[in-house]
Amino acid sequence: MTNARNLIDALADAGVDCLFANPGTSEMQIVEALGHDDRIRSVLCLFEGVASGAADGYARMAGKPAATLLHLGPGFANAAANLHNARRAGSPIVNIVGDHALTHRKYDAPLATDLPNVVSEFTVAQADVTDPACLYRDARAAVESARRLRGPTTLIIPADIAWTAHADQLDMQPSSAAKELDEKEISEIADALRSDGDSSLLLLGGTISEASIRSAYAIAAAVGCDVARETFCARVARGEGLPELARIPYFAEQAVEFLKPYSTIVLVGANEPISFFAYPEKPSKLTDSGTRFATLAAKPSAIEAALIQLQGQLEARGYEFEHVSPVPTLSPDPAQELDLSGVADAIARHLPENAVIVDEAITASGAIAEATVTAPRHDVLELTGGSIGAGLPLATGAALAAPSRKVICLEGDGSALYTIQALWTQVREKLDVVTVIFANRSYRILEIEMLRTGSNAIPPGAARLFDLGDPSIDFVSIARGFGMPASTADTAGAFDIALARAIAEPGPCLIEAIC
Amino acid sequence: MTNARNLIDALADAGVDCLFANPGTSEMQIVEALGHDDRIRSVLCLFEGVASGAADGYARMAGKPAATLLHLGPGFANAAANLHNARRAGSPIVNIVGDHALTHRKYDAPLATDLPNVVSEFTVAQADVTDPACLYRDARAAVESARRLRGPTTLIIPADIAWTAHADQLDMQPSSAAKELDEKEISEIADALRSDGDSSLLLLGGTISEASIRSAYAIAAAVGCDVARETFCARVARGEGLPELARIPYFAEQAVEFLKPYSTIVLVGANEPISFFAYPEKPSKLTDSGTRFATLAAKPSAIEAALIQLQGQLEARGYEFEHVSPVPTLSPDPAQELDLSGVADAIARHLPENAVIVDEAITASGAIAEATVTAPRHDVLELTGGSIGAGLPLATGAALAAPSRKVICLEGDGSALYTIQALWTQVREKLDVVTVIFANRSYRILEIEMLRTGSNAIPPGAARLFDLGDPSIDFVSIARGFGMPASTADTAGAFDIALARAIAEPGPCLIEAIC
Repeated sequence: MTNARNLIDALADAGVDCLFANPGTSEMQIVEALGHDDRIRSVLCLFEGVASGAADGYARMAGKPAATLLHLGPGFANAAANLHNARRAGSPIVNIVGDHALTHRKYDAPLATDLPNVVSEFTVAQADVTDPACLYRDARAAVESARRLRGPTTLIIPADIAWTAHADQLDMQPSSAAKELDEKEISEIADALRSDGDSSLLLLGGTISEASIRSAYAIAAAVGCDVARETFCARVARGEGLPELARIPYFAEQAVEFLKPYSTIVLVGANEPISFFAYPEKPSKLTDSGTRFATLAAKPSAIEAALIQLQGQLEARGYEFEHVSPVPTLSPDPAQELDLSGVADAIARHLPENAVIVDEAITASGAIAEATVTAPRHDVLELTGGSIGAGLPLATGAALAAPSRKVICLEGDGSALYTIQALWTQVREKLDVVTVIFANRSYRILEIEMLRTGSNAIPPGAARLFDLGDPSIDFVSIARGFGMPASTADTAGAFDIALARAIAEPGPCLIEAIC
Repeated sequence: MTNARNLIDALADAGVDCLFANPGTSEMQIVEALGHDDRIRSVLCLFEGVASGAADGYARMAGKPAATLLHLGPGFANAAANLHNARRAGSPIVNIVGDHALTHRKYDAPLATDLPNVVSEFTVAQADVTDPACLYRDARAAVESARRLRGPTTLIIPADIAWTAHADQLDMQPSSAAKELDEKEISEIADALRSDGDSSLLLLGGTISEASIRSAYAIAAAVGCDVARETFCARVARGEGLPELARIPYFAEQAVEFLKPYSTIVLVGANEPISFFAYPEKPSKLTDSGTRFATLAAKPSAIEAALIQLQGQLEARGYEFEHVSPVPTLSPDPAQELDLSGVADAIARHLPENAVIVDEAITASGAIAEATVTAPRHDVLELTGGSIGAGLPLATGAALAAPSRKVICLEGDGSALYTIQALWTQVREKLDVVTVIFANRSYRILEIEMLRTGSNAIPPGAARLFDLGDPSIDFVSIARGFGMPASTADTAGAFDIALARAIAEPGPCLIEAIC
């Protein structure tokens, strides 16, 4: 038995039960140890960006850390974009990265990189395990740090630390307990809301559960403040019987208008509002310099307990929402050309109870969100860090974490092609995911952004850099290549039928919506 | 006109004529400036790893820098694995990375990273352009550094540096001239070879042209030394009328045997031989501690001039190779099940004059190399940095750099799926590339490596992490999804016919070889 066994024991003992792998030669002993363990499910991914995004999706839905297994510096780099999204989502992930043996490091072999340097920007804590007797302890600490700091942590494991004989391990040090919420700070926030309720905003971010929403609205009813959420959240409860949280608009000028009424903003797992990108002559900071901020829960901490504590402090009773019946949606005119509203209506009509929506539809997202306000209760996972290519992997991980829930993945055609290899893992693991590709055959958001620069027209040479229609991409063929059933729809009727069937049948499938 | 114009002028003035782009919002002004320029060809890629690998392929074949256009830290991270390969290949590349505006950096917007930190491990020189008046100068310097240091350089351009009004630029500072070769060092190497010829090795690496091979063999004939090359090289001339350079074996134990006879090794664009990976009980350093090393040309410098200089110093006359006629290869038995030798024979039979072979076939590479020793003259581009996913992008860039040459891309099924999006760019740009997928439906190299750990058998849980057959991947369907003609072959006859047709017809296509 090799020392890699201590790593797998530590992960499993710490509660990790799912690992997304794209291993190589330097991880062979770890793979072997995984092969002898039945507590951790190993899921093969064809590209590291699928592994890291799937771990994010798993963590968002299971509420506990998932692991990845990656191959040296380049393997980590391939995973980095979705680790960026995971950090912004506050998702606990433990990256296990095999490195060259300690004895091999000085030789600058072809795959050598300075891994601690590669890793540092995309991880909230990291350790380079250089003592075989510390592998168990360091791995336990990596899982604990991922939970406590709510982000990806990284364990760099030189090959000779894994391949040496199974070593007795140093004791685990007890970790410090989580910080209690501070009663005094809560009471100051309660006072501010009492005195400034009308022009106050409770701004939610991160993972927003039904309980958090109920608590936020009870507070709002008691003090007269408004409730809103950040533009992109890790997970948000939505649908029938829940109020729709107002969302800070994406574009800076609209966000400034949205935030203008508020002189006090209470941050609940949210950051001070800033523009996603900067634009000439537009502000980065979306609020006035006079706006007062108070932090009820720092991003990315869990917000539910803090809201309930504030609710108690304010003696705000539970708030009963007026029950809003779902808007009956009419069946489509079968022959009508498919457009965004046709897709949105069909999704609202067929969304099953307790679904998970993964939203990377970019310019199509707004129409879907509008149509599904009163659809059956569901959770939405969003693109938290702006690194395109999160959607298909997130859906993969979410389906593994919540096998009894239908996952609907809304993907732009451009964004789908960053991590399209995720489809294969969905088939292999028989995951219950319906992927809808919004095939507008362009980087539509960039066309919009180009016009927003003040360009009256897009020069032809530039337009070609936004065009995905030459040649046009056949997602049905690509999906089938990965073993996934797929269909295409260019009329409202065809999309409606395809979606109804996809939702009725278990297992993965893809629908290309030409719109 | 915005200041981005100065960037494009600088690149074009410095001789950059091809740019591989996957831009985003923070690069809009750069895209617009590109749209108004006709000196630089902009090639859209659907994933940043395609852009960086294509730039590597372009640089290897054109012998001059290509550019990439990338979107902030996550975009750079997606490009990093193939930049790692490019650095190991000594390929000049200029990465243009848009960052958030300087005024926006302090706000930690969702896509914010510390870009200089993200970039540092994957670039040989970098600049963060913070003065609009320095954009032209810094861009010129980035191209010059890429040429001089033979690797990827990176220019970080905050959005407000690009969007500000077209600014007068600081003067270019003259760059220091390249270092002349040192006559004294050359003469010492000549003396060592004269005295120790029989047990000396001339070890070549990097870009190995026909002239370099002729020169190396003239030296060998004069002093009695042997000639070999590194296992993975940026570019190697091969085929009819050229001697086949012996290659250091990949596995450590075989490499040690190979190198044992030599007490003196002259490094010509090569590093001291080390094992690709470390293994228990096997050496990392592949030579005895008593081996003497002399460096004629440091990696990754150009080696041709140094070899010719040494040849002159030794007064070694040009060496005429015995002309070896191509081995006539028999037509295959049409019904025979396809195996590696069937593929290799067909490639040897049909390889056109002056082709470019891109080799990322991993476990299939050896058989092809053996069969093509006397095939018509061609160049081979190899996986220099071990970051899987280089092949399809390299072929894309090579075809753009050498439009009159047929490119044959040999790809493993596993490795193809890291950057499969490259197929689309090949179709869009009508590139003359034939991709052969070796569909053995496994990570075969990892099965071999697992058995080399001393595992007598692969535990079933681990075997599943090497298996690509559940579901099996239909590359024909995937290629057609990207608009590429494709076919599959599972007999020697079918592969022979498909390959002959693919080579006869211009434009991209893919053949899946079930073997």
